[in-house]
Amino acid sequence: MTDFVRPQVRALSGYVPGEQPHDDGYIKLNTNENPYPPSPRVFEAIQAALTGEKLRKYPDPLGTAFRETAAKVFNVPPEAVLIGNGSDDALTILTRTLVPEGGLVVFPTPSYLLYRTLAEVQGARWQTIPFDAHWQLDPANVPENASVTFVANPNSPSGTLVNRDVLAAWPGPLVVDEAYADFADENCLHLLKQRRDVIITRSLSKSYSLAGIRFGFALADPDLIRHLVKVKDSYNCDVLSLAAAVAALEDQEYMRSTVARIRATRRRLSEALQRLGFEVTESQANFVWARHAQPVRRLYEELRQRRILVRYMDYPGYGDGLRITVGTDAEIDRLLDELQSLL
Amino acid sequence: MTDFVRPQVRALSGYVPGEQPHDDGYIKLNTNENPYPPSPRVFEAIQAALTGEKLRKYPDPLGTAFRETAAKVFNVPPEAVLIGNGSDDALTILTRTLVPEGGLVVFPTPSYLLYRTLAEVQGARWQTIPFDAHWQLDPANVPENASVTFVANPNSPSGTLVNRDVLAAWPGPLVVDEAYADFADENCLHLLKQRRDVIITRSLSKSYSLAGIRFGFALADPDLIRHLVKVKDSYNCDVLSLAAAVAALEDQEYMRSTVARIRATRRRLSEALQRLGFEVTESQANFVWARHAQPVRRLYEELRQRRILVRYMDYPGYGDGLRITVGTDAEIDRLLDELQSLL
Repeated sequence: MTDFVRPQVRALSGYVPGEQPHDDGYIKLNTNENPYPPSPRVFEAIQAALTGEKLRKYPDPLGTAFRETAAKVFNVPPEAVLIGNGSDDALTILTRTLVPEGGLVVFPTPSYLLYRTLAEVQGARWQTIPFDAHWQLDPANVPENASVTFVANPNSPSGTLVNRDVLAAWPGPLVVDEAYADFADENCLHLLKQRRDVIITRSLSKSYSLAGIRFGFALADPDLIRHLVKVKDSYNCDVLSLAAAVAALEDQEYMRSTVARIRATRRRLSEALQRLGFEVTESQANFVWARHAQPVRRLYEELRQRRILVRYMDYPGYGDGLRITVGTDAEIDRLLDELQSLL
Repeated sequence: MTDFVRPQVRALSGYVPGEQPHDDGYIKLNTNENPYPPSPRVFEAIQAALTGEKLRKYPDPLGTAFRETAAKVFNVPPEAVLIGNGSDDALTILTRTLVPEGGLVVFPTPSYLLYRTLAEVQGARWQTIPFDAHWQLDPANVPENASVTFVANPNSPSGTLVNRDVLAAWPGPLVVDEAYADFADENCLHLLKQRRDVIITRSLSKSYSLAGIRFGFALADPDLIRHLVKVKDSYNCDVLSLAAAVAALEDQEYMRSTVARIRATRRRLSEALQRLGFEVTESQANFVWARHAQPVRRLYEELRQRRILVRYMDYPGYGDGLRITVGTDAEIDRLLDELQSLL
């Protein structure tokens, strides 16, 4: 009865996001949310926007106030900023703008599974570039004629950064998905000054503690942004999210303070996991990738029974592991206690 | 420098939404917003959701609470409901699910211009079915093998309904875009019980006064909804919008009371415009389509100078007119006074 659905969509299993339990009794270390609340300025901005006049009217389709704020923070023109309903929206808009049916989408593996889904929905081919044992990419493996390449940097599940020079020389169009960049020692913003075929995507879900409001953005050449704007839904960001996003971005000091706490806890978590016998990849993100000589699926399940959610992932050729979000110190202490008792 | 952009997107002029002035000194009768604030319950629900815990975590990807509320209101299973970031998002998801590159998108003309943009972004062909002088569609003009047909019902700019029997017999898949249905005497919900290839889309932007929060939804066969869910962004609706949408839908009494006021003002506006020499199409929506023997572009411009925004539209073969949103009685009195002085 759904034979009118495109075959590519019928064949799709679809991206499965991490579990979002409907009750609050869990320690959630499975979807890389920030354990700290957003900046107090975010609440003030939402309260100020919470009027009948604002709710009943359409929001600003281009997000002018956000563009101006982002322009100052990232030292780009406002016209270089595309607003997105989460950075997934920006990735979707980029795919629809750049990738024809039958085109080629390239991305490393193991990485964010959405890139493949986006290619499949678009009716495009996709090709992966394997990470080596050090989570690096060999430029010799780069396919010709990709419609777009997506590189999550830092990557998930590894939390690692790709070598700067490799990315700088990567053939365009190249999307550097910097959802986790605020937790890292470096980023690729400098490439925007050098190349017009590099796009940076950012998210307010992680470092700004705003996964609930859905806001992300892309930075790119204004000529490209003009095309992306034609493809996006006219009013893709709502008036409360826009208010929250402006306030969050303006409070860089608050963001940096929670990032500093998370980076400190990340170090402590990594070292403690290593003492428990895990092999832990050095992370530049707000999560760690931990493997063990013992089967970790059992650990994932036992933790779940104890109401601690982490992400179990198993990649062909790379083996399985736990991707553990860096929570508060108290949450991480609970996790480590449970793991100790389970090992 | 943007030669990597798909040619279909490069060629696109893009949908131009109605003007959203950045200051508040305008009487806005140009984008069919509701002149009344949303239900008080909406504010309570947003306040209740406005916590650090809610904002920092991802929202429910399926919008379970909204689906359950919509199921009760529309007498369908929860699995028959797709949540959308505005009904434009639902229309985009439907296009990506049903229309292959080179497929055929069909829609009446004059109607909502987004359908053509969606077809063009998808790399599809499009074909229009002309409305006759009574804003009706002749089934003899229906093309074979459409990937999807979009019918806005009530239609914009006319505010008219297509004959029930014509729609009931329309070849599927058929999307009935019911953004304005709450202002009308009838709707197409009954078709969901009869056909598995009919999809109804609804918006909270108009009758529920929530254009600012971006929320719409689709009702369809659960088998189809499962495919649509694979195509949508995982977290396409944010936690505050979801809370607002549930509260708005639960308060049917409030919605019906503002709709009743708007329908009363609509009648008064239509009659007054007729007395001013306009030819006014009988409207089933929250706007009226008004034509005049005099050139109306001048009226649009003069009104704009007097800080009253209406929509000027000019359709080849149909001529031009003003699409005027039904505002408050005071706003409509101001408009009528100005028009009287201009004619």
